[in-house]
Amino acid sequence: MKIIKDGITAPLGFRAAGLHCGIKSSKNDLALIFSNKSAVTAGLFTTNQVKSAHVLLDIAKLRRKESQAIIINSGNANACNGAAGRDNALEMSEYTAKCLDIDKQDVLVASTGIIGVPLPINKIKKGIKNISSKLAVDGSRDAAEAILTTDTTIKEVAVDTGIKGRTKDNIKIGAIAKGSGMIAPNMATLLVFITTDACIEYEQLHGALREAVNNSFNMLTVDGDMSPNDTVIIMANGLARNKRIKFNTPEYKKFTDALNYICTYLTKKIADDGEGATKLVEIQIKGARNIKDARRAAKAVANSNLVKTALNGCDPNWGRILSSLGAARIKIKPGKIDIAINSEPIVHNSISTNFSQKRLHNILKEKEITITINLNIGGHSSTAYTCDMSEEYVKINAHYHT
Amino acid sequence: MKIIKDGITAPLGFRAAGLHCGIKSSKNDLALIFSNKSAVTAGLFTTNQVKSAHVLLDIAKLRRKESQAIIINSGNANACNGAAGRDNALEMSEYTAKCLDIDKQDVLVASTGIIGVPLPINKIKKGIKNISSKLAVDGSRDAAEAILTTDTTIKEVAVDTGIKGRTKDNIKIGAIAKGSGMIAPNMATLLVFITTDACIEYEQLHGALREAVNNSFNMLTVDGDMSPNDTVIIMANGLARNKRIKFNTPEYKKFTDALNYICTYLTKKIADDGEGATKLVEIQIKGARNIKDARRAAKAVANSNLVKTALNGCDPNWGRILSSLGAARIKIKPGKIDIAINSEPIVHNSISTNFSQKRLHNILKEKEITITINLNIGGHSSTAYTCDMSEEYVKINAHYHT
Repeated sequence: MKIIKDGITAPLGFRAAGLHCGIKSSKNDLALIFSNKSAVTAGLFTTNQVKSAHVLLDIAKLRRKESQAIIINSGNANACNGAAGRDNALEMSEYTAKCLDIDKQDVLVASTGIIGVPLPINKIKKGIKNISSKLAVDGSRDAAEAILTTDTTIKEVAVDTGIKGRTKDNIKIGAIAKGSGMIAPNMATLLVFITTDACIEYEQLHGALREAVNNSFNMLTVDGDMSPNDTVIIMANGLARNKRIKFNTPEYKKFTDALNYICTYLTKKIADDGEGATKLVEIQIKGARNIKDARRAAKAVANSNLVKTALNGCDPNWGRILSSLGAARIKIKPGKIDIAINSEPIVHNSISTNFSQKRLHNILKEKEITITINLNIGGHSSTAYTCDMSEEYVKINAHYHT
Repeated sequence: MKIIKDGITAPLGFRAAGLHCGIKSSKNDLALIFSNKSAVTAGLFTTNQVKSAHVLLDIAKLRRKESQAIIINSGNANACNGAAGRDNALEMSEYTAKCLDIDKQDVLVASTGIIGVPLPINKIKKGIKNISSKLAVDGSRDAAEAILTTDTTIKEVAVDTGIKGRTKDNIKIGAIAKGSGMIAPNMATLLVFITTDACIEYEQLHGALREAVNNSFNMLTVDGDMSPNDTVIIMANGLARNKRIKFNTPEYKKFTDALNYICTYLTKKIADDGEGATKLVEIQIKGARNIKDARRAAKAVANSNLVKTALNGCDPNWGRILSSLGAARIKIKPGKIDIAINSEPIVHNSISTNFSQKRLHNILKEKEITITINLNIGGHSSTAYTCDMSEEYVKINAHYHT
């Protein structure tokens, strides 16, 4: 596997574009992803009971397990807009199909931004007409930019999987993502679009996606708030013309490794770009009784406002870490927990190791912090990804709407 | 029932004191509550698996269902200190008994402050010796002040229950509390000490306390972080010499009404004094399928960082409210929810009522905000108490330790 450039347009037969259609005042707010050929498509969506119109539409469309294009707007979530929201999502997909001259069943839709404000559908339709003629093989970056909301960085990645196809190149996977606030576990967090030219059936594609997402996006939290919109979609158009990838083969292993890499890379990029974040934080749980407990423990620490504010202040306040574990509804031995920060032991058997406060304060000034917690009660591990909580986080979210 | 003064020393036979013993640099940090007569005592403690030494000691002591004094230090939680923590908690209680010349079984202990730092037991013992001779019938305010940490206001209340005793006065109940950060539901939130001169047996006292706490402190959240220390204790010394209060009597009803009033009053005081809070927020859920769902829904909204930051910005961002309900693991009809802010309808059937943004922005500038949410799915109600989340909250918690 090796890292390559061009994001979602790196795999064969994909084009993309991004532009400004007027939902936001000046930043780009409309993106289009297009495959030259209808692609096997799998999606995972928010578990929030309040689902945006686009999520409900895509879930229905993906019963067919294929798509050829995705139209995405940012600046407006098209959530909680009732029947008008459903009509507008459908209109977006059907008008895109018309402009691209493809089957209207084959266009998926995604939206992100403010909840509960009607979508300016006329502006969007005008934008769709324009963007349909702007699709380009180097359009990934424009699309990646147009799906952002409060993000401060573009999230884009692509890899050469090392799996041979029947073309001169190996199979490639590319992806773009957005996510910065309203980020919480359980596939409720962000927009991610993944493309590949692999030839693979739905069952394998969906299985590989679920595994990768469980270990990456589902272990990500910025603020513990679950969004009604979030979406991961992977399109596989088969243009690499490889022998179809089957379960339990070296190719499947390479494919899932590459997909795991992509999802974990984007997860870290999103945590690092969390609203107001000054550092990327990994919470590694070891020695848990089972995988469920390991994940729950990692997320409990990652979701604690008090842990996150302490990290913002470069303060090794391990009592808050222990306290969040104690409240996590998992099996622990309250006197048997070990904690290290960037490999420096600070707690052994739930008591301070008498570490140097000054040394730890300096370690905590680093831009990447890994908190390793051994529950010493079993053999299971998990990692959660988050960021610190800053005054800037509050500032951003107190004034997002008005 | 009527409000009276003197807090925990309002009921007959209680004295209290507070002073500075040197845990904090200058503010008072040691409090003592004393009943002239051994009192029937009930306690409710944190559900965090990581419990402070004082909580473990008090749970053991309260098997006897009585006590005569409570010694409380602030500035140090005596949590996560291992065997030394247990020894120090015991030493605090036994040395207090010695100075007061009472049975050592009869002294309870409470601590609040930083986690994981050894208790300065020698300073505390010196303080205990001093404070034992300072007990006063007007000492409630001093005790209330000495138990605070990041609180900015004293929390103290007392009521005349209207229930006659055999003295010239009616039965009285008084209370003091502390709580500002690390405040989350499930009796994990704060220190509260309640005194009464009522003659009442343990079963009735404990029942009345549990009911009052479930509707007040257990519905309170500042930051969703559950503390290892938090404690509500009620002492009933019987000095009003009333006919013992039995279940299902007018007296029991008056007693629980007064206790509910006291607990709800203190709950609101704590929410209002939440770290960095600029306003008190009540989340009223109506029309829930059952009481469990009603409570869970109220807490889910009250715990949402995004709802709380929006309130800080006086922003009627109802999409965040709907979204937090959708993620709350309760039964909802996503298209049937109504929301009002301070009685102004803003959402009907999960869609905006087209309220005036400007008008709502002004309403949200008020110091007390009530968000009323009707799930329209059943007949059960619940209220949660919280505050907004400000940049100041982050500032306080980023730099509390160092």
